[in-house]
Amino acid sequence: MYKYYWLIFSRLIQLLMRIVIALGGNALLRRGEPMTAGNQRANVRLAARALAPLSKEHELIISHGNGPQVGLLALQSSIASEDTESSSLDVLGAQTEGMIGYLIEQELGNILPFEQPFATILTMVEVDKNDPAFRNPTKPIGPFYSAKAAAKLTKDKGWVMRNDGKQWRRVVPSPIPLRIFEMRPIRWLLEKGTIVICAGGGGIPTIYDQDGKLIGADVVIDKDYAGALLARELDADMYIMATDADAVYTNWGTKDACAIGRISCAEIEKMNFSEGSMKPKVAAATWFVHKTGKHAAIGSLSDLQEIALEKKGTIITPC
Amino acid sequence: MYKYYWLIFSRLIQLLMRIVIALGGNALLRRGEPMTAGNQRANVRLAARALAPLSKEHELIISHGNGPQVGLLALQSSIASEDTESSSLDVLGAQTEGMIGYLIEQELGNILPFEQPFATILTMVEVDKNDPAFRNPTKPIGPFYSAKAAAKLTKDKGWVMRNDGKQWRRVVPSPIPLRIFEMRPIRWLLEKGTIVICAGGGGIPTIYDQDGKLIGADVVIDKDYAGALLARELDADMYIMATDADAVYTNWGTKDACAIGRISCAEIEKMNFSEGSMKPKVAAATWFVHKTGKHAAIGSLSDLQEIALEKKGTIITPC
Repeated sequence: MYKYYWLIFSRLIQLLMRIVIALGGNALLRRGEPMTAGNQRANVRLAARALAPLSKEHELIISHGNGPQVGLLALQSSIASEDTESSSLDVLGAQTEGMIGYLIEQELGNILPFEQPFATILTMVEVDKNDPAFRNPTKPIGPFYSAKAAAKLTKDKGWVMRNDGKQWRRVVPSPIPLRIFEMRPIRWLLEKGTIVICAGGGGIPTIYDQDGKLIGADVVIDKDYAGALLARELDADMYIMATDADAVYTNWGTKDACAIGRISCAEIEKMNFSEGSMKPKVAAATWFVHKTGKHAAIGSLSDLQEIALEKKGTIITPC
Repeated sequence: MYKYYWLIFSRLIQLLMRIVIALGGNALLRRGEPMTAGNQRANVRLAARALAPLSKEHELIISHGNGPQVGLLALQSSIASEDTESSSLDVLGAQTEGMIGYLIEQELGNILPFEQPFATILTMVEVDKNDPAFRNPTKPIGPFYSAKAAAKLTKDKGWVMRNDGKQWRRVVPSPIPLRIFEMRPIRWLLEKGTIVICAGGGGIPTIYDQDGKLIGADVVIDKDYAGALLARELDADMYIMATDADAVYTNWGTKDACAIGRISCAEIEKMNFSEGSMKPKVAAATWFVHKTGKHAAIGSLSDLQEIALEKKGTIITPC
């Protein structure tokens, strides 16, 4: 009986939350899976199925990663015909916002009622040209390579390559986002009940040059932080990072691995996580929680509904 | 003196018009110019300078072509590494909406006051799967080729190639747009004073399959018609197609070539124009004028302000 009251109460307070959901690049393309159009669409369809029930109860803002996609486009662009030059990561980032936004909008639109308005808003994000990330590239993008192929790419294109456990991948700077330029249009559309897809791939990276003009930057912005900034600017009630792991784990990769359920910022900040996967997510989560006093969550795409109810995933709280 | 009164009067009625401007693919990349990132940005900068003064006086909706860009991306995508398949034109169209929308937004944003809101809205457009265009590809996309290279592409990739005067180009179906899905978000943003960039490349081509699901179509929608549909749906006061010619000409390419100033639909419909350039523009213009009773215009990007005042370009009127 008490459980029943609790359920009603919890449903009431959970209803009509404003939730920012960041879909990890690996939630859109499983690790090791060939990056075909068909595979991407199949994964976006799975994501849409997970998002659809949530969108009926809450105000939804959807962000997404673009690591595998922007890397592939960079590769394609660099091997194009001789009268073209390869595009920089701002232009390629804009292309991935178009491509992935389209797939999400179409697949989600095919599940939800026709009356539900959608909009994918191209999002430019400012970064600091003095961000230390420019001197230390850490963000892996694009396909995996053998040691030999990686060495050739470094020689031919000047790419920084790093060993990701077994294989090699290109790494690029991943600075922290300072400002999202399209906040007003995003807010106006949310007020009308639109599901907004924005800040894809962390947003299109831009910096101000010495003349005060906004120009593109050849980096990929930390998408977990970009989602956290978006959630903060929108006064979101919750910020969820959906990935291919069902929670944050202590002692990951060992036999003592243990999923973290509910944890305070102070507790989780004492722990160490791997640079390329959970570390940036945990950092973005605690940043959001510190700034807003709201909850952030990290968990599996397939558990989205339960994560919003704080029944699954790792829930990071102020205290 | 009378001229002075006329000027004031004409300014008053011209103020605060809602204008849809379609930027031709050739206004963004001059014919024969190598498709480098630098060239594209330089051309977008010129377009932004032409658009900026107009945006201070009128409500502006900006659409654009993507012929050269989508063709190049198709080429890049088809020569990529072996574990990827080449993307279809809906996905590539979405990529060009991101890329070109970003360049326009950034360059225009660098000229206009920071307070001016912008939004690039990803735009899906429905086409009819029985549109006769599917059986007769006419839309040229991508780079120019020699006869030998063109024959190889037909053999290797099954592309339809057509001779564009001197050189060869790939041609794809260019169906008529039936419906723009994101009309409500576009309207909501215009009501807030946002400059909206949308329906780029004619919009992302989509069709309903036999199960009633919206899927992508491997075509490039007629962007002049898509702009006309957008203008009609938005109750625009004027629809301007900006290109690299300063007007529509009779006897184009001969010594009797003569620019058309003001002309009625009935008059211009009696004339013949070339398939690949003015014919679709004139058809889209008369369609808009017939449906709305408003004026459409075709002229040079650099004359935009004078075209809005109906002092330059070809102005197509109901009667």
